[in-house]
Amino acid sequence: MRVCALAGGVGGAKLSAGLQEVVAPGALTVVVNTADDFDLWGLRICPDLDTVMYTLAGISNPETGWGLAGESFDALGMLARYGEDTWFLLGDRDLATHVLRTARLRAGETLTTVTGALSGSLGVRSAVLPMSDEEVSTVLKTPAGLLEFQEYFVRRGQRDEVLGVELRGVGEARPTDAVLEALAAADVVVFCPSNPIVSVGPILALPGMREALASSSAPKVAVSPIVGGRALKGPADRMLASLGHEVSAAGVAAIYEGLVDGMVIDRVDVEERAGVEALGMQVLATDSVMRGAQDRARLAREVVEFGAGLAAG
Amino acid sequence: MRVCALAGGVGGAKLSAGLQEVVAPGALTVVVNTADDFDLWGLRICPDLDTVMYTLAGISNPETGWGLAGESFDALGMLARYGEDTWFLLGDRDLATHVLRTARLRAGETLTTVTGALSGSLGVRSAVLPMSDEEVSTVLKTPAGLLEFQEYFVRRGQRDEVLGVELRGVGEARPTDAVLEALAAADVVVFCPSNPIVSVGPILALPGMREALASSSAPKVAVSPIVGGRALKGPADRMLASLGHEVSAAGVAAIYEGLVDGMVIDRVDVEERAGVEALGMQVLATDSVMRGAQDRARLAREVVEFGAGLAAG
Repeated sequence: MRVCALAGGVGGAKLSAGLQEVVAPGALTVVVNTADDFDLWGLRICPDLDTVMYTLAGISNPETGWGLAGESFDALGMLARYGEDTWFLLGDRDLATHVLRTARLRAGETLTTVTGALSGSLGVRSAVLPMSDEEVSTVLKTPAGLLEFQEYFVRRGQRDEVLGVELRGVGEARPTDAVLEALAAADVVVFCPSNPIVSVGPILALPGMREALASSSAPKVAVSPIVGGRALKGPADRMLASLGHEVSAAGVAAIYEGLVDGMVIDRVDVEERAGVEALGMQVLATDSVMRGAQDRARLAREVVEFGAGLAAG
Repeated sequence: MRVCALAGGVGGAKLSAGLQEVVAPGALTVVVNTADDFDLWGLRICPDLDTVMYTLAGISNPETGWGLAGESFDALGMLARYGEDTWFLLGDRDLATHVLRTARLRAGETLTTVTGALSGSLGVRSAVLPMSDEEVSTVLKTPAGLLEFQEYFVRRGQRDEVLGVELRGVGEARPTDAVLEALAAADVVVFCPSNPIVSVGPILALPGMREALASSSAPKVAVSPIVGGRALKGPADRMLASLGHEVSAAGVAAIYEGLVDGMVIDRVDVEERAGVEALGMQVLATDSVMRGAQDRARLAREVVEFGAGLAAG
């Protein structure tokens, strides 16, 4: 049973960790959003890739979901002493990741190759793939003007209303061969409970990606990141609302209409079943909030079993 | 009383710290060797500049003389986990210096500008100047072949016999305007007790540097890094021997013949006085080993007073 998961940051990383537990070693590939990657102090920072990599390596910070457990922040303190604006919390060990990645990218390696080497060194037994080796940048239209994604997300604490999303460079980018091969080889494709607009959205926006999904014979199943009308983490709920979507599991399902065969929703949203089914999807209602390793593995097992039982559309 | 010091790493940094204590704020300029600068993981590392900067800022590691006091090494541990060879001890806060410097150099700033900004942020009240904004690299000829300086100095622990010194790029490099101005404005020029071959040597090898020193009306005084026939720190003694120089204060004086007007030697080497004087230099024999802040300031005061009393050659 080969599983290919599409993921953003924390929510995607958690379900990916669960999937890694329940499939055979090497049978999971996680395709990760890179549209919120950015440069800081000349270093290439890939927040979603690192969150997935650290989580699959079992070294992520369990409190935050991102960053490393037991991290120190001495370099950041020194940068502050140099008068730098230290709005992006960069840990010392995390910094090593960015330094090494940047050096290898500058030496001509692809992000795919670098990520594979880094995650391999950390003992990750799944494939962690950037969605693309080309740079794509999410820029948000807000009442305060255009904001780079991390500017919006970290620096301004997601306080701005999102009125539009621009994915710069996406027209010239393409899914990597590794991504296309993983999709073609998958027995189940899982859309993780990540933000459908700015996490899964950029993956789907890559030219050729929807076609690759359509031509895959694997069933596709999405896990709703909206539970009880609220995002489990992050600004997905407000973003859906301000962009004119329904803030519900059914609203997420509507975004994925025609792409997925099944939708996993939380038990608290069970009255949305009929609405989701009306979009041509089968529905699994279960406990979808992942509070720990046990939850993650249990949900992952249910998602895979549900997905495997679906007929691909 | 404006003092311009020529310095390498630890020994030069110590005397510079003493000089900073005994002159008026802003009256000290330290011209620092950059020929042992190198790139590691895409970062530009300037060991001598940083040693001088950290020491003048009062934040250097008093045990080693280089690096930062109370430093952590979490990033380096992570780099090791990624399979990197961590022969160069890179602390977390030190790493911040390299990251920021590299970013600013890539953005087009000169090393002089970047160093001024960094040392200013650290509260250094003296000017810390790289000898040049062009890259110069010390390469050593040894029985094991050609070795980059840090390869020889750190990775191989200075165990190789040095048979020759090549300063790559020195012919195309030049002292910066700031260096030339500091020399022209100085009331005393001090050659710090740094390695005369690979620390002060590269500064003197810059095209135009000897002429600039010669045209300065300030007296020049050198402090011997050789005491009792041994280097106070590092491989200067063995390097002098293998390159055919006498391993003594007089041997160092011979290297500086025609460049300096006075030589400060240790009391233990007082019998070398006549030999040094025969080179046309006046001699001050004093306690030249700097064991702490008090020693540094006392030696600095003696050096400046001795220098100021000399007639420039």
